[in-house]
Amino acid sequence: MVNVGIIGFGTVGTGTARILIENGDVIEEKTGIRLNLLGIVDRDIERDRGIDIPHGVLTREVSDVLDNPDIDVVVELIGGIQPAKDFILRALNNGKHVVTANKALLATEGGEIFETAARNSVSVGFEAAVAGGIPIIKVLKEGLVANKVLSIYGIINGTSNFILTKMTESGMDFSDALSEAQVLGYAEANPALDIEGVDTAHKLAIMASLSFGIPLSYDKIHIEGITTLTPQDIEFAGELGYKIKLLAIAKSVNGEVELRVHPTMIPESYLISKVDGVLNAVYVVGDAVGETLYYGRGAGDMPTGSAVVSDIVDIARDGTVSSGMEYIGKRRDLKVKAMGDIESMYYFRFTALDRPGVLSRISGILGDYNISIAAVIQKGRQVGAAVPLVVLTHRARERDVRAALQEIDRLDVVADRTAFIRVEGEEAP
Amino acid sequence: MVNVGIIGFGTVGTGTARILIENGDVIEEKTGIRLNLLGIVDRDIERDRGIDIPHGVLTREVSDVLDNPDIDVVVELIGGIQPAKDFILRALNNGKHVVTANKALLATEGGEIFETAARNSVSVGFEAAVAGGIPIIKVLKEGLVANKVLSIYGIINGTSNFILTKMTESGMDFSDALSEAQVLGYAEANPALDIEGVDTAHKLAIMASLSFGIPLSYDKIHIEGITTLTPQDIEFAGELGYKIKLLAIAKSVNGEVELRVHPTMIPESYLISKVDGVLNAVYVVGDAVGETLYYGRGAGDMPTGSAVVSDIVDIARDGTVSSGMEYIGKRRDLKVKAMGDIESMYYFRFTALDRPGVLSRISGILGDYNISIAAVIQKGRQVGAAVPLVVLTHRARERDVRAALQEIDRLDVVADRTAFIRVEGEEAP
Repeated sequence: MVNVGIIGFGTVGTGTARILIENGDVIEEKTGIRLNLLGIVDRDIERDRGIDIPHGVLTREVSDVLDNPDIDVVVELIGGIQPAKDFILRALNNGKHVVTANKALLATEGGEIFETAARNSVSVGFEAAVAGGIPIIKVLKEGLVANKVLSIYGIINGTSNFILTKMTESGMDFSDALSEAQVLGYAEANPALDIEGVDTAHKLAIMASLSFGIPLSYDKIHIEGITTLTPQDIEFAGELGYKIKLLAIAKSVNGEVELRVHPTMIPESYLISKVDGVLNAVYVVGDAVGETLYYGRGAGDMPTGSAVVSDIVDIARDGTVSSGMEYIGKRRDLKVKAMGDIESMYYFRFTALDRPGVLSRISGILGDYNISIAAVIQKGRQVGAAVPLVVLTHRARERDVRAALQEIDRLDVVADRTAFIRVEGEEAP
Repeated sequence: MVNVGIIGFGTVGTGTARILIENGDVIEEKTGIRLNLLGIVDRDIERDRGIDIPHGVLTREVSDVLDNPDIDVVVELIGGIQPAKDFILRALNNGKHVVTANKALLATEGGEIFETAARNSVSVGFEAAVAGGIPIIKVLKEGLVANKVLSIYGIINGTSNFILTKMTESGMDFSDALSEAQVLGYAEANPALDIEGVDTAHKLAIMASLSFGIPLSYDKIHIEGITTLTPQDIEFAGELGYKIKLLAIAKSVNGEVELRVHPTMIPESYLISKVDGVLNAVYVVGDAVGETLYYGRGAGDMPTGSAVVSDIVDIARDGTVSSGMEYIGKRRDLKVKAMGDIESMYYFRFTALDRPGVLSRISGILGDYNISIAAVIQKGRQVGAAVPLVVLTHRARERDVRAALQEIDRLDVVADRTAFIRVEGEEAP
């Protein structure tokens, strides 16, 4: 028997409690272990969440869980940095295992939390922190343990993916798609963490540390959100055979690690480009296993609760969530590549005056910076007016791209700032 | 340190050895555990497999591994029932953990093997037995442990999926696609196990037992292969918005379990319908997590080796591959539904003479058996000649479908045996 206390009776707390209560029997049948919900802490213990909580379990006092000697596992589901961090440290120092869905906290202060856990010989489970119900943490720590991870590409923010899907399917602009996401409850009133790529980067930091052994490196991730994407770029991408997704990318390249979050063009033929709406997916390439993909719901009470409870079961089975977390920070020698040094293919949308010689001036500057052109689309010719000129490049260096665009945007024939999107996939021959 | 012996130095044995040797350092870095390859048994220890095996590791004597007191984990990779079964039982009785990729053996004789393991307090790891490098066994045993599994749909035979993909993309018939698979090394000289659905059913038996707790029930699975599929049916399916895949299906329905392997029409919009070529995928629906999908290479030296080595690491970490296997057989009360009792939507292709009243006679018989029609395609009208008449049904009972088709095939206006394919997906309104 393992006794569980939950801090935070919101969406995920409710899902977790429901699973512990309603699936407790089948979990015991599968594992021989009884998970016993001893306490749920929340400021609001009156509201009806639609589940039958046994008498005496609900409390407003966090110490009823944190300092209760009968509780083996504390589940932190309040989110944010404080007081979540203090609660977690106190639980660990009290000799309790912790399970948390708090990606923001782990990505930024995980080092201290994991050290505290190790010092107290207890575990921190965080399957629920990345990609909700998809068991991607277990996959990275255990399922693919035999591999050197080569690359990870994740669609791991349902809000952003819903918005991009809407924009792609209906031609809606960003703000209308965001409003619809808010109406449907897929985006918060303050959606910044989601649409600006911050939440995606938190999750990427965790996956990258587990996969490459680097310290948690949230502050080294290059982050761009989806707020400046236009329906026009999505449409041009479609004409070129690509979808645009907000991707978390981690790659091992020549002894360095690339970590970046940005809108990315992916060939429509790739399975991950077909992951739409609020669904999440993580594509992982290992040196032995090759390409793999994991797909499911990245948020929600029951999917995230499923991940929380799987961590509790792991702790109950082994006295620990199976190892892997000790790898984090072992490879302090592995550097995160500076963004200027990465290489990628690029999509450029120039807003150029439709005059003779414009393409030659632009391509001349690209050439000066070793950027070679793979495809060009020029549309809606209107002599003397500003029209979009779309260019797809071969692999180029980000630093060169930025310098070239700066120079191009100063040309008198260029009427607006050039939009650019990085492109993944096979390079055109 | 954990000492490993491999029996069988074929494709997967070579991949496993390569991973142990080439990725031994990174595995130790991740886990703190050194995996030490002490022995490899094969009849042929001369052939160059392209890896540098340390002196003294290769042997022709199986007892050098099975009876070697220094070896902790025996990896069985010879396949087939005997002598694999004897070797595994001997290893278990010698107190050694066993890791195996042998789905045929586990599906048919797994009960005895798991009992022997339990009696000797050792583990049997079999991640490599299902879907190659995809960690689906771990997902079912651990990642989704909090769920009641509702259904599983698997594309878990790469040979069949390659053949169906070829037939779909090029209009090739079955035998030409099979020949191409053989030329490319994706199908064996004797491809029966793959194309007749037997291999798929072996893997389904294992997944179903882990998910539902039923005893290993290979002999209760309804199995149909892909040998009778025609390019014509694939084309009609496409016109109706479906792909045809060989699916392993397990569903929990009203206190019974459906277990079946057969060609299945899946809506083209579903992610799993886009899994092409030799790739595998398993779609698992849990009551908490909802829909999830796992995708990757289902065969090959390195992908399967990745799964083998992940089991060895689990054993090394915990002294056991984390539990789950003890659930197999606990639910002896859960019955496998008789095939006649299942309900499904159906695709029928009648070969009917093009005469007035034919559709009415056919649909009359269908109606007599409570089979209602959702869509009809009639093509290539040619009065008096036999033409295909394609019907898509609403949900109907298999027993009724078979009886109706038997009656219809006796009609004088029906010139050939009716082809039928089961259809998954949302029911048409």
